[in-house]
Formats: sequence, C-alpha cells, structure tokens
Amino acid sequence: MRGAVLYAPGDVRVEDRPDPTIIEPTDAIIRLVATCVCGSDLWPYRGVEKRDEPAPMGHEYVGVVEEVGAQVATIRPGQFVVGSFFASDNTCEICRAGYQSSCVHRELMGLIGTQAELARVPLADGTLVATPEPPPADLVPSLLAASDVLGTGWFGAVAAEVGPGETAAVVGDSAVGLLAVLAAGRLGAERIIAMSRHEARRRLALEFGATDLVAERGDEGVARIKDMTGGLGAHSVIEAVGTQESMMQAIRATRPGGHVGYVGVAHGVTLPGEELFFSHVHLHGGPAPVRRFLPELIELICDRDIDPGKVFDLTLPLEQAAQGYEAMDERRAIKALLRP
Amino acid sequence: MRGAVLYAPGDVRVEDRPDPTIIEPTDAIIRLVATCVCGSDLWPYRGVEKRDEPAPMGHEYVGVVEEVGAQVATIRPGQFVVGSFFASDNTCEICRAGYQSSCVHRELMGLIGTQAELARVPLADGTLVATPEPPPADLVPSLLAASDVLGTGWFGAVAAEVGPGETAAVVGDSAVGLLAVLAAGRLGAERIIAMSRHEARRRLALEFGATDLVAERGDEGVARIKDMTGGLGAHSVIEAVGTQESMMQAIRATRPGGHVGYVGVAHGVTLPGEELFFSHVHLHGGPAPVRRFLPELIELICDRDIDPGKVFDLTLPLEQAAQGYEAMDERRAIKALLRP
Repeated sequence: MRGAVLYAPGDVRVEDRPDPTIIEPTDAIIRLVATCVCGSDLWPYRGVEKRDEPAPMGHEYVGVVEEVGAQVATIRPGQFVVGSFFASDNTCEICRAGYQSSCVHRELMGLIGTQAELARVPLADGTLVATPEPPPADLVPSLLAASDVLGTGWFGAVAAEVGPGETAAVVGDSAVGLLAVLAAGRLGAERIIAMSRHEARRRLALEFGATDLVAERGDEGVARIKDMTGGLGAHSVIEAVGTQESMMQAIRATRPGGHVGYVGVAHGVTLPGEELFFSHVHLHGGPAPVRRFLPELIELICDRDIDPGKVFDLTLPLEQAAQGYEAMDERRAIKALLRP
Repeated sequence: MRGAVLYAPGDVRVEDRPDPTIIEPTDAIIRLVATCVCGSDLWPYRGVEKRDEPAPMGHEYVGVVEEVGAQVATIRPGQFVVGSFFASDNTCEICRAGYQSSCVHRELMGLIGTQAELARVPLADGTLVATPEPPPADLVPSLLAASDVLGTGWFGAVAAEVGPGETAAVVGDSAVGLLAVLAAGRLGAERIIAMSRHEARRRLALEFGATDLVAERGDEGVARIKDMTGGLGAHSVIEAVGTQESMMQAIRATRPGGHVGYVGVAHGVTLPGEELFFSHVHLHGGPAPVRRFLPELIELICDRDIDPGKVFDLTLPLEQAAQGYEAMDERRAIKALLRP
C-alpha cells in the first residue's frame, strides 16, 4: 500500500509500505476513505518534536472495515467506521469514566500512521464507531473531522465547562480552535469570543457561531476579554495552541472560579504555581477522549445539525500529502484532507 | 489594645497597638474571643515570605461585635460572629459564584491582623456570619477552626470533587490537611488516605475519618497510592502544603480524569505543562472561599456533628503568641489557639 512517511523536518514522502495485517485478535484492518493532516503533525514536521527514524504519519481516519480479528465482536467487515487517535478498550475503569485517551490499554494511532491506504486499528470494538449506514460522500469530511479536531474542540469546550448563558473565549484559530467555537455554541454559550487575526479563519469562526472576534494576543488579548466581561474575564476559555503564551493568555482571560479547557498539545510550557493559585481558575485538558463523544458527534453530523467538515479548505490525493503539510505549515490552508 | 506583630523572621512580639475604629460605613469592630496561628503565618515567620516592616499578624477570628458602621444592615452589636481571612461583599458576581476570596472588593484580613484584642472587619454584612445564639465555650475552638483551616480543608475536598464511594488522598498533615480528611468523609469518600509520618497527626487523621495512613512521600508515596488503587491513582487528591514536591505528589497520585484540589499556598512551584497535559487530571484550588461554606460549617459545629477544634493542641494567652509560633514552627504543636 501507499503511505506517508516523515523522513526529516519538512520532508514528507508518500511511498510503498507493507500492507497491515491482523496482529492481535482484537484488531481490525480498515481501508481509508479519507484521512488528513493535523496541526499536531506540524510539531514533528517543523522539527520541534524529534523523530529518530523515518516515521509513518497520520492519526485521523474514516474508512470501511476490510477484516477483523477472531475476538472482534461488534465491528464487522463492510461497516463505515470512525475512530480516534488513541485506540482504547472502552471497558476499563478509566474508559468508563470517559477518559479513553488514557485507557489502560491505549495505543497511539500516530505510531501506526493513517495517512495511508490501509490501517490496522487495535482494540477495534472499543475504538471504532460504525455509522448507522454508509454515509453520503458529502458527509465524509465532517465524519473525518469527528476523528480528532471536532472531538478535540468538543472536549476543550466540555473541559472548560461551557454552559448556557455564559461567555466562552477560544485561544487559537486552528481547526481545533474553530471547532471549539462550534462546540461552545452547541453547549449553550451566549457569547463566544474567537481570538484570531487571520481573515479566512475569522470568517469560519463566525460561521461556526462566534459572536465576537478579538485580534489582539497576549496581555492585550487578555485586556480585551476583560473589557468585554465587566473586568472579570470569561467564564470558560478554551486553549487550542499549546504554547506558554497561549496557556497564560487562557488562564489570565478566565474569571476567578471559571474554567480553562486546554487541548493544544503542550510544548515547553511551565505554569507558575503562585499565579495559578491566586487565579482561582479550574484547569483541565489533555489529549481529548474523542471516543467519549463519537456517538453523539456522528449523530449530529448524520442529522446534518453541524457541518465541521468546513475546516477542510484543501483536498488532495494522498500522493500529494507533502503539499498538504506545506500549505498548513505556511497557514495557507486551515486543514488538508487527503484522499487515498 | 494588645496585638501580635512580626518584626523579623522568628521575632513575634505582642505589644500595644492602636484600637481599631470604623473607617468605612460598612465596617464592624469585633472583640476577639479567640484567634490562632496559621500554617501560612509560618511562611513570613520563617523568612520565606519577606516583610519590609513590622507587620500585624493573624487572619483567623471569632468574636463579639462591638460596633458597626452606618451602612451595616444585618450584623448587630452583641452577636457572636465568625469570618474568613478575606473580607468580601458577598454580592458581586464572583462572590455569587462562590469565590468570595476573589471578591472584586476583597480585603485581606492578614493586613489588619487578628492576633489582637480587637479587629476591624471590612464589609461586615458580607464577611461575617453570626451564630444563632452565643455558643457554649467548648464550641469556640471549632468555630474558630471554621474561620480558616476547616473552611480551607473543606474547599480542598470540594475542589477535588470528593464524592460518595470514591478514594481520596490528602497530601500534608497540617491542620488544613487533617480537616480535609474530615471534609472528605463528610462528602462521602469511601476510602481516605492520609499521608503523614507524624504520630500525633496520624492519630488525629484516624479520628477525623482516615481509613489508611501512608508514611512515604514523593515518588514512593505516589507508588503506594497507585498500589492501593489498582495502579490507577486516587479519584481525588487534596494538596495542603504548597511546595513543588507536594504539588507533583498530588498530581501524580491522581488517576486520569481525577481531581486535584490544592489549598497549600504555593511557594516556588512551577508545573510542567507536558506532564500536566498527559496526566489528564483536573486542577483547582487557591485561597479558599471560606465564606461560601461558613453557614453550613457553623451549623454542623453547633449541632455537634463535627469537632474540628481538635486541631488545637496548644492553647495560650495572646501575650504568649511567640510561643505558639515557635511550637508550630518546630512541629511540636499542630495548631495554637490564642486567648486575648
């Protein structure tokens, strides 16, 4: 099969890779219908995260089941399925509490690499959610978004405890940040402030339900949020970047007693204990347990209640994956969908 | 009047200070019935927190109202009252959300100094809670505990979302830590693990409802908690120290999706963003909004349902405040009550 491999910073190649096979009896093999490039793929692409050897890339996927292992009970060949970037058994105590991305048996799909024609999905019964019927083609991008960016933005809004009548702010205008705007609206926020200075992303934020746009960043961004909230700060702030500046911006823009939901993968962040203590905020986040939300998100998408697939503003054949990375790295594209 | 003043690290003196007077029409003057030395008073006593000039000490208090300002509507002379270490209006949006210690008009009682015969209490209607009738003398220590250490331990347990049937662990065996044990029991925890290696404190932890004691600290302490919880960690961990080691011990002893409630005043703490991200814990804490809990705590004490006053294992006349500091600094006393 063909699949994307990162050789060095800036060097992504699509090449022949061995077809995956069933290794564990709980595995499934899926044929990818669509996959994509994630903001978090840019960390190794930019060399911020080191890779010692050529690495298969990709962890977002929708596809059709080709084959299942002997112990797979509910997932069947022919089903159209959506999964998350962590495989999870969905039965352990941590999964049952809703934290499937910390499942005691979790496996990182990024190590398997779903920017490919085929992929092995471990713990298929726990990981995959089948759509009620094969979806029409125009819903595929939205279902693919559910695999990570929608689920992650949704978790950010849930972790920030966005609630009816409240003010939510979103730091970061990546696909995750934009879909956190959408999630905040679905969770009932009255006012949704998107922090972005990028024209196309600002437009999409408005389409997804943002009521206000703030171009300022850092201390100036915080001051703007305070001005807009009677000096108090937002009830809920979703952090979708993962840098020191964005985390501090999120914490400082939140009112005492409010909630920060952080889903940007932290890189080089250290939080000052004293400031955090006196900030009185709630802090929660981490790798999104997308599996928790998949059944609900798939239903919303199949009912055409939400259209998260709009984040894909570039579609390429898998063979041109490198162009997708390049466009996202240069912020010419919000998110690149790849067709195997 | 007489009052305690810190002149330099290790140098607390009780001396003549001017009697307080009504400054704002929302003030009350109270005559202290009891006051005490707080674990947090030891930070400046030990020179960890610097003071540029002689500083009045103390922020815990119960007393009888002597006089009220013209705008005080509900608090009346003669009432026995309990207040928190932050004066608060109890009407602003932050107070109404339950974060009175971040009230937009808050004033720090520690700057006023309640280790004294008299004290001015700002925002009396918002700050003070009167007991239904003057309490019998044996309840005074417990009511005094409600003013800070009980309310703070309680907030720690609430911030850690201790719930029925769950496992809670407490890092720190100060009065706050011990009363967090008591609070965890009242909130329904099935298993309460107190982390202490100090004999008298271990005994008191058991009296307050601890089901298990762990003497190990740091990584070994974390390993013990994991062993006791099927490798997962506790559902809720209350941090009541405020050091780097205790914060990391609390975070690492908490299971993914679990809650850390931190109430030890942070000193020199920096939290590693990556570890926090992948820990999947909820983090909440800060200066306890004791005022939120006072009505409930006063009722529990007056009904003799709880006896938090047991934390006072040393009672001294106010004139001997220095001995109280010394005994707590050397961990000979858990907490020193001072009688003006």
